[in-house]
Amino acid sequence: MKLWDKGYSIESKIEQYTVGQDRELDVHLAPYDVLGSLAHAQMLQSVGLLSEEELKGLQQELKQIYRQIAAGQFQIDEGVEDVHSQVELLLTRALGDAGKKVHSARSRNDQVLVDIKMYLRAEVKEIVALVSELFETLIAAGEQYRGVLIPGYTHLQAAMPSSFGLWFSAWAESLADDLRLLLAAYGLINQNPLGSGAGYGSSLPINRSLTTELLGFDGLHVNVINAQLSRGKTEQALAFALAGLGQTLGKLAMDVCLYNSQNFGFLTFPDALTTGSSIMPHKKNPDVFELMRAKSNRLLALPNEINLLTSNLPSGYHRDFQLLKEILFPALQQLKESLSLCSYMLQRVQINPDAIQDEKYTYIYSVEEVNKKVLAGVPFRQAYKEVGDAIADGSYSPQTQVEHTHEGSIGNLGLDLIRQKFEGVLGQFGFAKWEGAFERLLAE
Amino acid sequence: MKLWDKGYSIESKIEQYTVGQDRELDVHLAPYDVLGSLAHAQMLQSVGLLSEEELKGLQQELKQIYRQIAAGQFQIDEGVEDVHSQVELLLTRALGDAGKKVHSARSRNDQVLVDIKMYLRAEVKEIVALVSELFETLIAAGEQYRGVLIPGYTHLQAAMPSSFGLWFSAWAESLADDLRLLLAAYGLINQNPLGSGAGYGSSLPINRSLTTELLGFDGLHVNVINAQLSRGKTEQALAFALAGLGQTLGKLAMDVCLYNSQNFGFLTFPDALTTGSSIMPHKKNPDVFELMRAKSNRLLALPNEINLLTSNLPSGYHRDFQLLKEILFPALQQLKESLSLCSYMLQRVQINPDAIQDEKYTYIYSVEEVNKKVLAGVPFRQAYKEVGDAIADGSYSPQTQVEHTHEGSIGNLGLDLIRQKFEGVLGQFGFAKWEGAFERLLAE
Amino acid sequence: MKLWDKGYSIESKIEQYTVGQDRELDVHLAPYDVLGSLAHAQMLQSVGLLSEEELKGLQQELKQIYRQIAAGQFQIDEGVEDVHSQVELLLTRALGDAGKKVHSARSRNDQVLVDIKMYLRAEVKEIVALVSELFETLIAAGEQYRGVLIPGYTHLQAAMPSSFGLWFSAWAESLADDLRLLLAAYGLINQNPLGSGAGYGSSLPINRSLTTELLGFDGLHVNVINAQLSRGKTEQALAFALAGLGQTLGKLAMDVCLYNSQNFGFLTFPDALTTGSSIMPHKKNPDVFELMRAKSNRLLALPNEINLLTSNLPSGYHRDFQLLKEILFPALQQLKESLSLCSYMLQRVQINPDAIQDEKYTYIYSVEEVNKKVLAGVPFRQAYKEVGDAIADGSYSPQTQVEHTHEGSIGNLGLDLIRQKFEGVLGQFGFAKWEGAFERLLAE
Amino acid sequence: MKLWDKGYSIESKIEQYTVGQDRELDVHLAPYDVLGSLAHAQMLQSVGLLSEEELKGLQQELKQIYRQIAAGQFQIDEGVEDVHSQVELLLTRALGDAGKKVHSARSRNDQVLVDIKMYLRAEVKEIVALVSELFETLIAAGEQYRGVLIPGYTHLQAAMPSSFGLWFSAWAESLADDLRLLLAAYGLINQNPLGSGAGYGSSLPINRSLTTELLGFDGLHVNVINAQLSRGKTEQALAFALAGLGQTLGKLAMDVCLYNSQNFGFLTFPDALTTGSSIMPHKKNPDVFELMRAKSNRLLALPNEINLLTSNLPSGYHRDFQLLKEILFPALQQLKESLSLCSYMLQRVQINPDAIQDEKYTYIYSVEEVNKKVLAGVPFRQAYKEVGDAIADGSYSPQTQVEHTHEGSIGNLGLDLIRQKFEGVLGQFGFAKWEGAFERLLAE
Repeated sequence: MKLWDKGYSIESKIEQYTVGQDRELDVHLAPYDVLGSLAHAQMLQSVGLLSEEELKGLQQELKQIYRQIAAGQFQIDEGVEDVHSQVELLLTRALGDAGKKVHSARSRNDQVLVDIKMYLRAEVKEIVALVSELFETLIAAGEQYRGVLIPGYTHLQAAMPSSFGLWFSAWAESLADDLRLLLAAYGLINQNPLGSGAGYGSSLPINRSLTTELLGFDGLHVNVINAQLSRGKTEQALAFALAGLGQTLGKLAMDVCLYNSQNFGFLTFPDALTTGSSIMPHKKNPDVFELMRAKSNRLLALPNEINLLTSNLPSGYHRDFQLLKEILFPALQQLKESLSLCSYMLQRVQINPDAIQDEKYTYIYSVEEVNKKVLAGVPFRQAYKEVGDAIADGSYSPQTQVEHTHEGSIGNLGLDLIRQKFEGVLGQFGFAKWEGAFERLLAE
Repeated sequence: MKLWDKGYSIESKIEQYTVGQDRELDVHLAPYDVLGSLAHAQMLQSVGLLSEEELKGLQQELKQIYRQIAAGQFQIDEGVEDVHSQVELLLTRALGDAGKKVHSARSRNDQVLVDIKMYLRAEVKEIVALVSELFETLIAAGEQYRGVLIPGYTHLQAAMPSSFGLWFSAWAESLADDLRLLLAAYGLINQNPLGSGAGYGSSLPINRSLTTELLGFDGLHVNVINAQLSRGKTEQALAFALAGLGQTLGKLAMDVCLYNSQNFGFLTFPDALTTGSSIMPHKKNPDVFELMRAKSNRLLALPNEINLLTSNLPSGYHRDFQLLKEILFPALQQLKESLSLCSYMLQRVQINPDAIQDEKYTYIYSVEEVNKKVLAGVPFRQAYKEVGDAIADGSYSPQTQVEHTHEGSIGNLGLDLIRQKFEGVLGQFGFAKWEGAFERLLAE
Repeated sequence: MKLWDKGYSIESKIEQYTVGQDRELDVHLAPYDVLGSLAHAQMLQSVGLLSEEELKGLQQELKQIYRQIAAGQFQIDEGVEDVHSQVELLLTRALGDAGKKVHSARSRNDQVLVDIKMYLRAEVKEIVALVSELFETLIAAGEQYRGVLIPGYTHLQAAMPSSFGLWFSAWAESLADDLRLLLAAYGLINQNPLGSGAGYGSSLPINRSLTTELLGFDGLHVNVINAQLSRGKTEQALAFALAGLGQTLGKLAMDVCLYNSQNFGFLTFPDALTTGSSIMPHKKNPDVFELMRAKSNRLLALPNEINLLTSNLPSGYHRDFQLLKEILFPALQQLKESLSLCSYMLQRVQINPDAIQDEKYTYIYSVEEVNKKVLAGVPFRQAYKEVGDAIADGSYSPQTQVEHTHEGSIGNLGLDLIRQKFEGVLGQFGFAKWEGAFERLLAE
Repeated sequence: MKLWDKGYSIESKIEQYTVGQDRELDVHLAPYDVLGSLAHAQMLQSVGLLSEEELKGLQQELKQIYRQIAAGQFQIDEGVEDVHSQVELLLTRALGDAGKKVHSARSRNDQVLVDIKMYLRAEVKEIVALVSELFETLIAAGEQYRGVLIPGYTHLQAAMPSSFGLWFSAWAESLADDLRLLLAAYGLINQNPLGSGAGYGSSLPINRSLTTELLGFDGLHVNVINAQLSRGKTEQALAFALAGLGQTLGKLAMDVCLYNSQNFGFLTFPDALTTGSSIMPHKKNPDVFELMRAKSNRLLALPNEINLLTSNLPSGYHRDFQLLKEILFPALQQLKESLSLCSYMLQRVQINPDAIQDEKYTYIYSVEEVNKKVLAGVPFRQAYKEVGDAIADGSYSPQTQVEHTHEGSIGNLGLDLIRQKFEGVLGQFGFAKWEGAFERLLAE
């Protein structure tokens, strides 16, 4: 008796083991599988491997399937292994053997590659939109709370005056930096692998430049072995970008959890957005931010999962790559949820304007005091000694008005410069190109 | 008695524990510390915090120290904690209290940040040069061995005809993709953090745009908290890029180790470049590539080390960041060595032109056979059946001449397209900007 | 309009974000939640916090719920957050306020901790059974194929004679080593955290030793803060053990994939257990082992995911820990599937008895030749030279009969010693203790 | 001109690349290399492969070399690759060809394996001693500060009363759990690989049980392939144990950094043990604990580095394994330093006995209040309501005396139970066995 035996035959065990989560995950790929087939068919006709009539039949059916998918009516039938087989099944049902012709000069592997590329491209677009929303939220909050001072910490020690304006806009600028990695990943994603076959190309006279154009790719994975190498490498690059965003979100969440503690008391959230305890009225657990921190840390773990899966494998396709989908796809959903909720929560944050008044923060103005004396002409060493002595004999009583003027300081947040930087990266994505290409492919 | 007691006082224990490898690692930062001070001094004078005379004195001394560094004569004195203290010491010795004035409106933290940025910028330049050298090596080998067929593998099963031309140029194109991540990291590196102080700016009226220009940075880390957040984030982004290159090199090395095995016999190296055994003349251990694989895997581990160090730390400086240097800096050296040796070895590789002749590879032509029949007008299903039958009855005897015509195939490597792609990314780095700036700072 | 808006209210967004996969994952915990409540109730009665009558009512209901769970009829109602709430709901429905009394001196957190401990304990038992099955499979195969020589590789170079007997039994012994880590993790798991409340204990006079005994734990997490620290630490230790097994399985799978390649041809599997190609009859893709390798690599990534989640968090409960379940629980299922399939596949492996005959392996006997001469009295340097000369002048013609006699060699596999080692660790688990305790708790 | 060219010949480049840090790291292995050779020689004589006279000569020279090592006078000569070659060189210088005979039936690989095992065994012993010292420090501090209450946190929210007694002793118990993993790793380490040759054994009639006994190993890595598989696996297991300790130390350090912040003010350290600022007298940067946190996080990264290096490599020796030394050995030193300093610092910690008095912690007694009423006979729901109402109308004024009685609570720390647990694991190590064996080997 085997523990794992539950009445299934071994074949079903092996099938379950090898198919894994493919059927669920492939639903994400369905629209792109159809679009890819539309482009491939058009190319086949252009090089004489399909007749014009066959092309028309295929186009008609493929668009019909696309509409089903868009309407949420598409599903992978019981017993059908994956999305590619399901589309093939529908085409063959409708068109007979002609339905199979779209698979000339194309392998399953090829199809998976190009579908994933298009799916990830669309996911990047959604992520960029959510990052932009969070960016706007942070900039607006920076603007709104520019006057609220809080202590700035080094070594977790209250050190110098900071402000909520500075704090919020710091994360906004950080997102601009995160976009750079996302743009690099997008550059890797946005290349056409179609035509690489099983990784060694085809002896049929296909036109890869044409499918590149039809699918709106920025360019070609030229070398077919490299197209295959892009499996794993593409996912790695995107995972890096997600981890970059994860670091920003996770650190922000950690700050929020600290600042929401009674020991800081810098901010809080409406009751509906925290969990509490009727008997401990002071307790407002920041569960959303704790989970955001945790989910962000999972994003930080992502590249490593991918690296362990692919490292030390020789070139060429291995079935191992199938698991890349179940590693990466859910992470994309989790990041989108975190980004969306982060905006939502921060739009409702309640800032304590008086936290800085606490006596324990008195000393954070001491460096400012020295600087003021320096600017008034007192030599630095003398100024430093005077303030030190005042602290020692108890006569220290700092002005708590702070005058910073340089770019990016509490007195001059530089929000325009930050926006400029963000938009500079944002403008390089160019999603319209493939959106237009898709419209043309689907046009009646 | 403590195990760890070896006659040192506890103070030296704590010092050793906290200083760690700083003194060794800081040597890398020395020239950049001087350049940063030159720019900072000029800025201080421009806003009235230094007299013209003081500036001149400082410039003279700093250039003198720079020359010492360039001549390999600079060292951190016993008892001096780090490079910044050593430079300060030299300035004070030469100029008295005026030597200390260069530290107005600047914290140690600030200095470390900007020094690291400039150091990493220069390292990226060196890496890009070595990647380019490897790219050229691979393209040349692709060109040279374009006619040498080898089996292409999927699932580690010999599947279809490939070639050394295809194999070499695949890695070349892969490097083009790796450059994208390096460019993104470079974009993050090439921003000026100077003026962020301990992470909360300065109340002195400094001009951060001026130092940005003087040091040849592409832009400003505007927000001072974000400038501090860039510690860890910069290292993370660069580690991602190194890991990307690591994946390429590691996989290439794995292929080489396999192909060099007697079970493949596709390539070998001159005796001087392998280790062998006089008594097992068949044995040529590919130690260089085994170590390259291992060192590449260490690069893949790098981002995770950085993530574990920084994740869940709230914003603001923590001493933890000091260890980023000992994680990242040696990895840069290791990557450069691997890149350089990879070029060297591949320039001397010995290709076996006849490996494909082995009988066990006969079947890899079967798909080609089917395609040939299809192109000659035989319907696909018929063609497929004919070849299958021929294999079954033993009459299968494939033509082993392969005719692939599409871009990136064994018959049409598309080396120009690959070069275009590589140079497209390469052209975006723009190292000349800061090289020019440095020349101006150091000009007499 | 938000991308992520799909007609849900924000409350449902937040709920979905915070509840996550809890409802699905908690099904695993249901039986243990009931067992924990049975023990807790009995303890409460023993210290006077429940009447005997209340205890009886609770026991009756809890056993009823347990039977439902065992019969697969238990489910978490729509709108109920987790398994603990569902059980509480059922008790309150049946017993009114008395149903709530079981929650005296116990927090949700407490319950989650003890449920997870019991669940993991049972999972370890299943894993140990599957490891034992694989061990027996490997020992049997070692015995069966002890006479089949294959080349042994170093640096991926054929180096010396090895055998399938040696190869199979190597993995068996490796499993014995893996059990050590599993035993250490089990030691960490098998400690009772119940009574730690939210991590700071209870002011009620509870008896933690009693619940330890009733639930069959080996001991107590004495300190209540440490009981809370065990969250994360327990999962980490178990993840280490899974990763240890992952390393063994992954490496074994890599060997199988290589040996199944045409370039080695050492072994294969029946057609039904591989995927192939009718047109490439030589191709038998080892998909099961490729996926086993990939799933094993995911296990290697597991500890790191847990480390990133928990590192740098201060002591005390954080909501972040909730995600530990979704990281760890599916991994347990995956490991069990891999272990089971590995046994199944290896029981059906087809060994090529003649692989060693290939001419390219001639030189692997050269060291044996030298040793034979040494044993016959020829000085080593002389023997070495004679064999080297014979190889050089082409007269080398080794005897291919191999005589190894020492423990663990091809001539003396030492299977009994290996079994002894395996059973030595196996015997230390002691699952019977808690199985007996559970029977007593559930007895009518 | 190559960037990396600095006047070295390529041979020196390749040598530098392949030798790496071996010469430095091997110094750790020197004494064990000699001990291994003493045992191997004695075994060779016992099976007739060395004469009694040859054995005596070897023993005399080896003991002489051992004395040099112990006196710090041993060094690896310029141009000698590693420690094994250096010892061989010394033997040959002294004994001529007889010196080489100790290498019969043993490969370099074999020697490295057994040396590393013995080195790691000794390192574990040192670590266990330092863990014990820290355990005693924590137990003593728990005893000393058992009466000092502090708030206990959940979700970083002050929640319930805790104490420094509880906090200190929690880490002590945590160390007991960490020892379990260390013991498992030790079990893996403490097996004799000697005699496995290059991974496929020897045709000479060696006696592996004898060397097992002579070197004081607990048992044999029976199967020679498995002995080779233990490379990587041993390091992985030990890395797991180090990471377990790293988690404990890192979390403890995070708590210390928080508690030392002005926002908590629970503890501090003498000035000499922190870094401060004369002008911000409130600032006491806990650099030692920040670096301890960072170094602990590096330990958490360790298993992953090893996993990436070894995963997906087929069985058999690969040169990649050489890098395991440079990954693992420095980590051992770092852990020992952290453990030692942690004890030192905590022995000098300054506890604030009054932190709990702060008004913001008033509500942490509310659950106690409810429990007190319950114990006095008020039904729970009524008690809960009364306390809730008192909080709401401002009349809540809790007794701040806390009465916890159960094991492991603030009122009953259970230090004896914790000690029992710690010593239970400690007692299983058995270092005396090999220490005795070494004495016998080295006896005149």
